[in-house]
Amino acid sequence: MHLDFSKQNGLVTAVVQDHATGRVLMVAFMNQEAFQKTVDTGFATFYSRSRNKLWLKGETSGHRLAVKEISADCDNDAVLIKVDALGPGVCHNGYQSCFYRKLEAGQWMESEPRAYDPAAVYGSNS
Amino acid sequence: MHLDFSKQNGLVTAVVQDHATGRVLMVAFMNQEAFQKTVDTGFATFYSRSRNKLWLKGETSGHRLAVKEISADCDNDAVLIKVDALGPGVCHNGYQSCFYRKLEAGQWMESEPRAYDPAAVYGSNS
Repeated sequence: MHLDFSKQNGLVTAVVQDHATGRVLMVAFMNQEAFQKTVDTGFATFYSRSRNKLWLKGETSGHRLAVKEISADCDNDAVLIKVDALGPGVCHNGYQSCFYRKLEAGQWMESEPRAYDPAAVYGSNS
Repeated sequence: MHLDFSKQNGLVTAVVQDHATGRVLMVAFMNQEAFQKTVDTGFATFYSRSRNKLWLKGETSGHRLAVKEISADCDNDAVLIKVDALGPGVCHNGYQSCFYRKLEAGQWMESEPRAYDPAAVYGSNS
């Protein structure tokens, strides 16, 4: 089988999960080139829809994602990437996971403290 | 904050994770109505892109997904739904998870046995 990049304009959904803890860390997209680079290099590479280019996760922060396992879903348009996250957090807002807000009684509530200071990592314009 | 349904033509990505085991079970999409029904009913409801309609997961199989926790990601276009999966598997192909194939030495390999017989659940035309 082959991944089906046709259903999302050349992209597949990529779910990133911590290999050791099982925590879902982020969701992003890969085009065929990003997927191949991920496989070939062993570090998660995505396609940035906002910047319209390949995006080696951690290229600025150093918080790269070392790939431990890759799975595909039944309709071939999503991949699950289990990783060893190099660094305190994957979220550009400073949290361990991008999913740092929980719905509680109809309100989105921050559910954890920051794991690092994003201004120190990305600069004050982040 | 509000979920941003504008980036994916009225949809957000929904990652479904087993609340007890941490296994990622499936990835689907929700429009605003599906998300609200998920919150209001406590059972995961998606938007089917192929059928262009709301899709109560388990409406045919009975394998519904009881919602335990909902998180949103940092850019508001993906949700993480932790569930108690009612039934042996969420995948329409008979597996516990839709992510039942791993990439091994460049080949996608089925990595687990079926959890149920999809023909018995969905009929022989499934």
